[in-house]
Amino acid sequence: MKRIAVLTSGGDSQGMNAAIRAVVEQGHHLGIEVYGVYYGFKGLVEGDFKKLTVADCQDNIKRGGTFLYSARYPEFKEVENQKKALEQMKKHQIEALVAIGGDGSFMGALQLANFGFPVIGIPCTIDNDIPGTEYTIGFDSAMNIAMEEIDKISDTAASHNRSFVIEVMGRHAGDLAIWAGVATGADSIAIPEVKMDMKDIVRRVHAGRQAGKDHSIIVLAEGVMSADQFVEEFLTYAPDEDIRGVTLAHVQRGGNPTARDRVFATLMGARAVDLLVQGEHGIYMGVIGERLETFDIIDTLRNKKHNVRRELYELNQDLTDKTLA
Amino acid sequence: MKRIAVLTSGGDSQGMNAAIRAVVEQGHHLGIEVYGVYYGFKGLVEGDFKKLTVADCQDNIKRGGTFLYSARYPEFKEVENQKKALEQMKKHQIEALVAIGGDGSFMGALQLANFGFPVIGIPCTIDNDIPGTEYTIGFDSAMNIAMEEIDKISDTAASHNRSFVIEVMGRHAGDLAIWAGVATGADSIAIPEVKMDMKDIVRRVHAGRQAGKDHSIIVLAEGVMSADQFVEEFLTYAPDEDIRGVTLAHVQRGGNPTARDRVFATLMGARAVDLLVQGEHGIYMGVIGERLETFDIIDTLRNKKHNVRRELYELNQDLTDKTLA
Amino acid sequence: MKRIAVLTSGGDSQGMNAAIRAVVEQGHHLGIEVYGVYYGFKGLVEGDFKKLTVADCQDNIKRGGTFLYSARYPEFKEVENQKKALEQMKKHQIEALVAIGGDGSFMGALQLANFGFPVIGIPCTIDNDIPGTEYTIGFDSAMNIAMEEIDKISDTAASHNRSFVIEVMGRHAGDLAIWAGVATGADSIAIPEVKMDMKDIVRRVHAGRQAGKDHSIIVLAEGVMSADQFVEEFLTYAPDEDIRGVTLAHVQRGGNPTARDRVFATLMGARAVDLLVQGEHGIYMGVIGERLETFDIIDTLRNKKHNVRRELYELNQDLTDKTLA
Amino acid sequence: MKRIAVLTSGGDSQGMNAAIRAVVEQGHHLGIEVYGVYYGFKGLVEGDFKKLTVADCQDNIKRGGTFLYSARYPEFKEVENQKKALEQMKKHQIEALVAIGGDGSFMGALQLANFGFPVIGIPCTIDNDIPGTEYTIGFDSAMNIAMEEIDKISDTAASHNRSFVIEVMGRHAGDLAIWAGVATGADSIAIPEVKMDMKDIVRRVHAGRQAGKDHSIIVLAEGVMSADQFVEEFLTYAPDEDIRGVTLAHVQRGGNPTARDRVFATLMGARAVDLLVQGEHGIYMGVIGERLETFDIIDTLRNKKHNVRRELYELNQDLTDKTLA
Repeated sequence: MKRIAVLTSGGDSQGMNAAIRAVVEQGHHLGIEVYGVYYGFKGLVEGDFKKLTVADCQDNIKRGGTFLYSARYPEFKEVENQKKALEQMKKHQIEALVAIGGDGSFMGALQLANFGFPVIGIPCTIDNDIPGTEYTIGFDSAMNIAMEEIDKISDTAASHNRSFVIEVMGRHAGDLAIWAGVATGADSIAIPEVKMDMKDIVRRVHAGRQAGKDHSIIVLAEGVMSADQFVEEFLTYAPDEDIRGVTLAHVQRGGNPTARDRVFATLMGARAVDLLVQGEHGIYMGVIGERLETFDIIDTLRNKKHNVRRELYELNQDLTDKTLA
Repeated sequence: MKRIAVLTSGGDSQGMNAAIRAVVEQGHHLGIEVYGVYYGFKGLVEGDFKKLTVADCQDNIKRGGTFLYSARYPEFKEVENQKKALEQMKKHQIEALVAIGGDGSFMGALQLANFGFPVIGIPCTIDNDIPGTEYTIGFDSAMNIAMEEIDKISDTAASHNRSFVIEVMGRHAGDLAIWAGVATGADSIAIPEVKMDMKDIVRRVHAGRQAGKDHSIIVLAEGVMSADQFVEEFLTYAPDEDIRGVTLAHVQRGGNPTARDRVFATLMGARAVDLLVQGEHGIYMGVIGERLETFDIIDTLRNKKHNVRRELYELNQDLTDKTLA
Repeated sequence: MKRIAVLTSGGDSQGMNAAIRAVVEQGHHLGIEVYGVYYGFKGLVEGDFKKLTVADCQDNIKRGGTFLYSARYPEFKEVENQKKALEQMKKHQIEALVAIGGDGSFMGALQLANFGFPVIGIPCTIDNDIPGTEYTIGFDSAMNIAMEEIDKISDTAASHNRSFVIEVMGRHAGDLAIWAGVATGADSIAIPEVKMDMKDIVRRVHAGRQAGKDHSIIVLAEGVMSADQFVEEFLTYAPDEDIRGVTLAHVQRGGNPTARDRVFATLMGARAVDLLVQGEHGIYMGVIGERLETFDIIDTLRNKKHNVRRELYELNQDLTDKTLA
Repeated sequence: MKRIAVLTSGGDSQGMNAAIRAVVEQGHHLGIEVYGVYYGFKGLVEGDFKKLTVADCQDNIKRGGTFLYSARYPEFKEVENQKKALEQMKKHQIEALVAIGGDGSFMGALQLANFGFPVIGIPCTIDNDIPGTEYTIGFDSAMNIAMEEIDKISDTAASHNRSFVIEVMGRHAGDLAIWAGVATGADSIAIPEVKMDMKDIVRRVHAGRQAGKDHSIIVLAEGVMSADQFVEEFLTYAPDEDIRGVTLAHVQRGGNPTARDRVFATLMGARAVDLLVQGEHGIYMGVIGERLETFDIIDTLRNKKHNVRRELYELNQDLTDKTLA
């Protein structure tokens, strides 16, 4: 293998750059040239390639976002575009591809694999919602940001003995809400995987105050409802409560990645290159029990689903399940 | 003077605890006991006092919020409650009061001053909107948080070549928007003090892209409109633009204060005690040209108004005023 | 079980407070009173106890250090003192103890267990060097701090095309150096577990520069040698190199814990209470493959040893193993 | 004026990139091309120039260090080299120069000015030690880092009831020590401008403890002595004290600049271009009372000296001047 390419696609997450850098460095180590594809699958079709050097990546390991840029490109579903991408790679003598992104990116990668082209995916999404792997790059950074923001908000909450509901990302997966909620000692956590019981949440808030807490925090995954809706609904049960809603939004996906995200991105990026060299493809990288694993793209995405660590959710609900006197 | 009291009132800001600590330490230095009043003017009326020690304050200098808590208490406008407050202080042999907060808090303080009771205010608000003083405690912390959040968002903005409008606090004052905007190289800043011209903002965004920028940032003070409204209006002028809105909300007022906020809070807190000892009162502390000043509560609040540093706003508009080719 | 106690002992780490809080909250949930013991085993002998409430812990979940304080107390090896500790607990009707700290703390706990008193340990140390468990509370926080400090230093290193060796904690364990090194893309990592080859390190630095890097970073575990010694020795091989040493020292153990440390501290603290209720003791909590495990104190500490994740070390050495032209 | 150049020289500081960016953006605004000179005066002599665009600078406003690099180059004192620099600029049709750095950089700039070449300096140093101006770019960032590091250390200090002396930068100027010390409520501050009295420091530490403080912090400017020396000397007066020393070193000069540093760097960079256009030169930018000022390079550097804000130092010494019972 002489030359491979790497692209980032879908929503960005912290650690994407660290994964790119690992692909480039491991390529360098093994004597393989690495081409960066700009703007994801769109750039693949258009031949927007540039040879990457070790120097290009040195600073980027510590940066959020993706220096290869990303783009929405639903047109890649068209076979014509897939063929153009293959031609572009052939033209540039690119023998394999590392696709960094979420499950959408892996499906794009699979469409190339279906033509026999070697591709490996690296899971990068702050939502941690990819089947098979217990961990996706960006999740650790996002949950630390969410936690830090909630910490800040709790200063105001405490000063005014107020309740706050903080809406974190997660349309279908409650992972961010769970981890950020446990980390901040939230009075309650609301996730898409468990039917929300507003009456119970109100009871927890009241019981927490009765136990001496000077403020209350509820962490809400966006997939349940918006912070504004939550406040409105909460007030129908507890009209006198001083409660405010905050939506953390895009601040969760930016900023420098945490050490954990950088380390796992590095592990995955380097291993992906190794595996391509060994002839493996049609797979994506993942982590189970803190060790690297690989997953068949089509089998895993079709047949498995992502599960939250429900025991963490339940632990938090237990810890804060004080009874009203 | 043997005993004074200190309270925090109104919305919290970073640095309030540092101001309390300075009052206590300077009291200790001068042989004056300092009583903390819990929950602002409400606690003053109800006699919710506790003697504060140096040890109570050691850790708090670095914390956001206020460990004396704050509360809304419009009832303090009633003379009956003001008299109760005076009685409570008399009963506890409290000879003077330091009121930490915004202009609302100073008006409360003034009502005590009108009875001849010595009070000095310390301006704490992230909005930086108090007449007379160029600087209020909390502003430096809030603007650094706003900047850091915009930095994070710009990672995503750049990765997707997207535009973001970020709504920061400031109902009547554009200071936060201006400083955070200049610090992040925003393409445009919208503040309550200057009529917004959406057409011009769209032009700046387009001209910035033409000059090679890979994303666009607009910083919006909440007093102009909400981020959601902004996006809607922006899209009427530039329907194809990929623009998103983020409202930073309460994350701006929490977290550990910056060095500058702690240092000026310390200066003001200590000086307030000195001035009370020297017989000064009916004033509040402030900063002009980096030096401490004092302002007559009633004269200054009535006759002056807060002005933003307009040259900073204009500088930013100049710097980003690229012409469309 | 009606009443248990919790103490922190040995060097502090981020996340200790989160563990204490989880013990208190889980106790509250199960109807068990939790007493805090101040100053570790010294306080146990002297009866320095205080009943802890949910309110005592609310803010502490987010703070570094230990609000129960810690103390060196080698005198606990004396049987007389162990008996005094048992008497104090008997006197206060304390039926079991959670000891938070490192292996030294667990040995102290074991001495009580030898008298039949129920104790469970929670591993808190930034060094991650406790046998059995793959993870100790504080490690994630410390490695993120080390990484952030190296990030800062690399700004100066790059500006001046300079090399820096950064000494991180770890007398016997290279974990912090490895993770911080991989996370920052260090040119080389030196750990106690692998004999250092200075000639090879010099070669890596030179090869990195030849490959276009604008600065060089070496991460050094304190157990190998000091940063000053390293610089001196490095210069004997590369006298013209502009290299500086920085010792991160105690900044690594403070500051707010990361989400991961808080979450695992919460899991362990709550589970420790559950296990005591179920009659388990003489064990400590740990993590294998991201799941909670327990380890027999005496068996594990005697018969196992901590191993670094050597594949991470080797990966980094591979990634940066450029050949000099 | 059609074309100007900008360089960074001497030790790096946070905010240098923001100053460069402002020069480029203001140039763009006024229709002036801006060339970046790499590696300071060395690059000026060697003609290491590159035209800078708005796009080159967009991300850099938020980064520490200098993307134009810096270098020691004492050879610039030789007239021959100064002439080469002038020739290089002539060759590239560069009509004026903005020199970003400390007083050493301004002296280099002055040597060009002596040939009649227009130069303006922008003061960037974390030491805040340039005569005339009250503020230098980088100082706010460095003092916030120093403060945050001391905050972290105080977690450990408190947990073990320990004393720490923290050595911050400042060979000749105590500014960093003073501001970081006031911001962290240090028990004592030692600066080059005031003769240190170790006996008094020991007394303050003991008196603080007697007043209930659970740990002690001393902030030491490197110009006084090293942290190690301090600990040794302290122990001759208080042999039983548990005191540790930490040297913050280079972490103080890196990391993303604060809002204040970015804003003032932007103000100065833009104004420097304006002034060059207006025909001013041989000066450097500065701040007095929060407003931009200019200073004659030769007059100010020769005849003025930098003074610390001694009242801040004295305030801190007063606040912590507890009497031993």
